[in-house]
Amino acid sequence: MAKKLEFESVPGGVNAAVGYLAWSAACGIKPGADKSKQDLALIFSESPSVAAAVFTTNQVKAAPVRVSQAHLKTRNVRAVLLNSGNANACTGAPGLRAAERMAAAAGAGLGVHANQVLIGSTGRIGVSLPVEKIEAAFPDLTKADGRSGSTAAARAIMTSDTFPKESAVRVRLGGKRVTIGGIAKGAGMINPNMATMLAVLTTDARIEKALLQRALKQAAEHSFNCITVDGDMSTNDTVFVLANGRAGGPLLTARGADYERFTAALTEVCRHLARQIVEDGEGVTKFVEVRVSGAASARDARLAAEAIANSTLVKCAWFGGDPNWGRIMDALGYCGAKLHEDHVEIFYGGLCAVRQGVASKVAPARIQEVVRRKKFMVEAKLHLGTAEHVVFTTDLSTEYVKLNMGE
Amino acid sequence: MAKKLEFESVPGGVNAAVGYLAWSAACGIKPGADKSKQDLALIFSESPSVAAAVFTTNQVKAAPVRVSQAHLKTRNVRAVLLNSGNANACTGAPGLRAAERMAAAAGAGLGVHANQVLIGSTGRIGVSLPVEKIEAAFPDLTKADGRSGSTAAARAIMTSDTFPKESAVRVRLGGKRVTIGGIAKGAGMINPNMATMLAVLTTDARIEKALLQRALKQAAEHSFNCITVDGDMSTNDTVFVLANGRAGGPLLTARGADYERFTAALTEVCRHLARQIVEDGEGVTKFVEVRVSGAASARDARLAAEAIANSTLVKCAWFGGDPNWGRIMDALGYCGAKLHEDHVEIFYGGLCAVRQGVASKVAPARIQEVVRRKKFMVEAKLHLGTAEHVVFTTDLSTEYVKLNMGE
Repeated sequence: MAKKLEFESVPGGVNAAVGYLAWSAACGIKPGADKSKQDLALIFSESPSVAAAVFTTNQVKAAPVRVSQAHLKTRNVRAVLLNSGNANACTGAPGLRAAERMAAAAGAGLGVHANQVLIGSTGRIGVSLPVEKIEAAFPDLTKADGRSGSTAAARAIMTSDTFPKESAVRVRLGGKRVTIGGIAKGAGMINPNMATMLAVLTTDARIEKALLQRALKQAAEHSFNCITVDGDMSTNDTVFVLANGRAGGPLLTARGADYERFTAALTEVCRHLARQIVEDGEGVTKFVEVRVSGAASARDARLAAEAIANSTLVKCAWFGGDPNWGRIMDALGYCGAKLHEDHVEIFYGGLCAVRQGVASKVAPARIQEVVRRKKFMVEAKLHLGTAEHVVFTTDLSTEYVKLNMGE
Repeated sequence: MAKKLEFESVPGGVNAAVGYLAWSAACGIKPGADKSKQDLALIFSESPSVAAAVFTTNQVKAAPVRVSQAHLKTRNVRAVLLNSGNANACTGAPGLRAAERMAAAAGAGLGVHANQVLIGSTGRIGVSLPVEKIEAAFPDLTKADGRSGSTAAARAIMTSDTFPKESAVRVRLGGKRVTIGGIAKGAGMINPNMATMLAVLTTDARIEKALLQRALKQAAEHSFNCITVDGDMSTNDTVFVLANGRAGGPLLTARGADYERFTAALTEVCRHLARQIVEDGEGVTKFVEVRVSGAASARDARLAAEAIANSTLVKCAWFGGDPNWGRIMDALGYCGAKLHEDHVEIFYGGLCAVRQGVASKVAPARIQEVVRRKKFMVEAKLHLGTAEHVVFTTDLSTEYVKLNMGE
């Protein structure tokens, strides 16, 4: 962002903007006998809205990704239907048909066309989606008062997440009060270029579809694409945004001050959701901000920050509260970024551990004290240029392994 | 290798070839009060020898790597001195001086020039090497009978390894019996393009220096560069080979049948050592051969095999005995190789789990039975071409995390 722009946090998640309803239900997709497990969420715009999306770059794309990519061509999108407990990925032609039936079920339930419905799924890969359970959830699903359903919807899309993730901000655009809100889920397979994550954002801004797409892409680049838990990129990652224009004011059609303000606010919501995803990563005991500065290029800064953030050895050391800066030097050395070993400085929470590529004079015990905290920052200064990149990441715990060793 | 060539396994490690002595000692570098911990190994060629080496491609290079790169210019290399317990990496100019003193100490002890000595170090990064302890190990170090010191030397270079690694084979070249043997250490930071590993190979073959370098590079490509434990590439990885010509016969100066036979035998020794390194990876409970076939290019085959072998989620699933082929599909999707999702087949120990990108009809319980074994093979067939690549790897266990969470 070029400069700090003013916006205020507000409650409400996907209900925060004017004209959006949210519902959720336990339709029986999540395994186990407990039918009370919420696994279906529906977000509905009462008015016509334009939509944009960012999807996984994984070449293996889940059926809901393919179906939503097609439905995004619709100029008036009205709803997003999400299920947890089953990713509907690697399910072939039957999976595609199931995904289309999901959209059709929501369309019928809401009185709109199936192609006005976007869909998302998250959960186990390679298992047939029992779409008839989703169909059976209608028409009851929309009977509740949808004006305060955001938190329950955020909870219904959780998989191994431990808390629902919501965010919303308010900003002034063209003299009008505009709100942007959202919900998200994360947990495993979290990596730049989209995490195992689903997010739905809603706004009452009046903005053209193409410009909304541009804003979302920029916001995702500075938020969801800057987080990593385990370096694995999923088949289902999706961020949707709906804009219904209910805030009024002039239609945003071109870049300029209002666009910048809107994008900054959208980015703020995305960053807040992204941070919650990292903090709730599987088995996470520490939240670490990895900053690489002084890189020769933006690409180098990203390569270096991601190498540090994804190093199994670095993450295990953090779990143990061990600074082990040698492993960071090692990651810098193999990441592919331009590097002069004897220029490197490494800081933990502002304390210099490495100067000119070798141990500084700071007492190791002081640096260890930083790494024992629940949250800390690690910065590597390469002293080769001016590019920098920040990644939010976690440690790698024995609990992570246990969570991922079986079903 | 073009075809199967005949060689027989023999005992003796670095002592197996004619004219090599090996010694080891506990000189006090390894931390802790236990002075009996072996941490110094010396391999000596009684006759003039040519040497070749393959080093880490990490841009952060340990001092012994830099010093050995310079000493390799010598046409007559006589010895390799290795220490464990300290990597002498990220130690700046004092580290370089310490590395040079290591070589000088061995040269003085053996009556050869310092630049006829190659050196290697393995252990913690960023800690000053107490080189005076190495100097003090001479002249006692070479007093023992060095003709059977290989196993003790292999033990002295261990860090978190749990067993010493040796291999040797005999092959006929130009009517003469030629022997190639070696020792190695591995454990953590094991990744293609060289592991955290040191290896020393010795041979009595008569071969030109440049050809020896070519053979070693080829052998490493098909062995040490095909293994991965944790995806981290170290600052110290080194493979040395010495050839003293004591087997007699014509000097190998050009490629041809004898060169192919020699390289095949050298590769066999390297592969055997590499397999031992993977089997002894930190916290390993399973040894997995990952094969990708039918790739559009050799690069694609390698990208795909390494993505599977390095996926944290895939490795955690294996630890739990869970096939979880969805995670393999996911890795194939993000690895960057050309992929048609609906062409993919995945096999576990020969059992087809995925056909045309979706679950096969084979009962999951049968596939799970394969993944519960200590050793198994996973093969992904991409059906896009003829390229294939094999990587030897491991699971990721809670024990791995515990071993790497602190000092």
